[in-house]
Amino acid sequence: MRFDHAGVATDDAEGLAFLYEDLFGCSIAHEERFGELKVLFLELENGYFELLEPQDDGTIASYLDEHGPGLHHIALETTDINAALETATDLGVECIDEAPRQGAWGHQVAFLHPKSTGGVLIEYVEH
Amino acid sequence: MRFDHAGVATDDAEGLAFLYEDLFGCSIAHEERFGELKVLFLELENGYFELLEPQDDGTIASYLDEHGPGLHHIALETTDINAALETATDLGVECIDEAPRQGAWGHQVAFLHPKSTGGVLIEYVEH
Repeated sequence: MRFDHAGVATDDAEGLAFLYEDLFGCSIAHEERFGELKVLFLELENGYFELLEPQDDGTIASYLDEHGPGLHHIALETTDINAALETATDLGVECIDEAPRQGAWGHQVAFLHPKSTGGVLIEYVEH
Repeated sequence: MRFDHAGVATDDAEGLAFLYEDLFGCSIAHEERFGELKVLFLELENGYFELLEPQDDGTIASYLDEHGPGLHHIALETTDINAALETATDLGVECIDEAPRQGAWGHQVAFLHPKSTGGVLIEYVEH
């Protein structure tokens, strides 16, 4: 699998994007409203930061309330998300999404529960 | 810059490595004792997980006590870590390391303070 992106919960996606552009030389590759979220993808040479800013109540707003801004998840790219989920299930890993669903940027995504993966929220992504 | 690794704080690096090997198809690329830490690098196609298990008191042990296991930092690879730190300083970003120091795997590393980077602990790495 490949590293696809690091998801970052923020209350100011544009401000953070400007800073990361200057600091890391990355630029905005994609921007959309996805559900209750403003989502910005910043492109590194071999992956992305995904900045997640809530516009309304939801899981990211709750995360910010509880933890403050910061790292939220790591997304790994797979060429066969169904096979990846099947492997996870066979290994006894709890999957938040039992089947892939449409995520931001039109990708198929599925999340694994952090309690099964050493406290790390993992997202599988199939482009 | 390139994504280099996601740092994960854990109280069982070997157990988590076995799981990630089975889940993500990555394998152990490097293992060392670094200061008070057991450090394992698991290789993805385009980067690494760095598993950090404390063997004694220190920042990772404190992190685990406070937050439990999970994502600790994101490391970005640069070909000129001194220039990267200078850029950060010029932008008013607080640097935990004012100058590069030797990190795990013999790499030069320097950390930026999360309060300056949207709550994300960023490590610069020069191989």
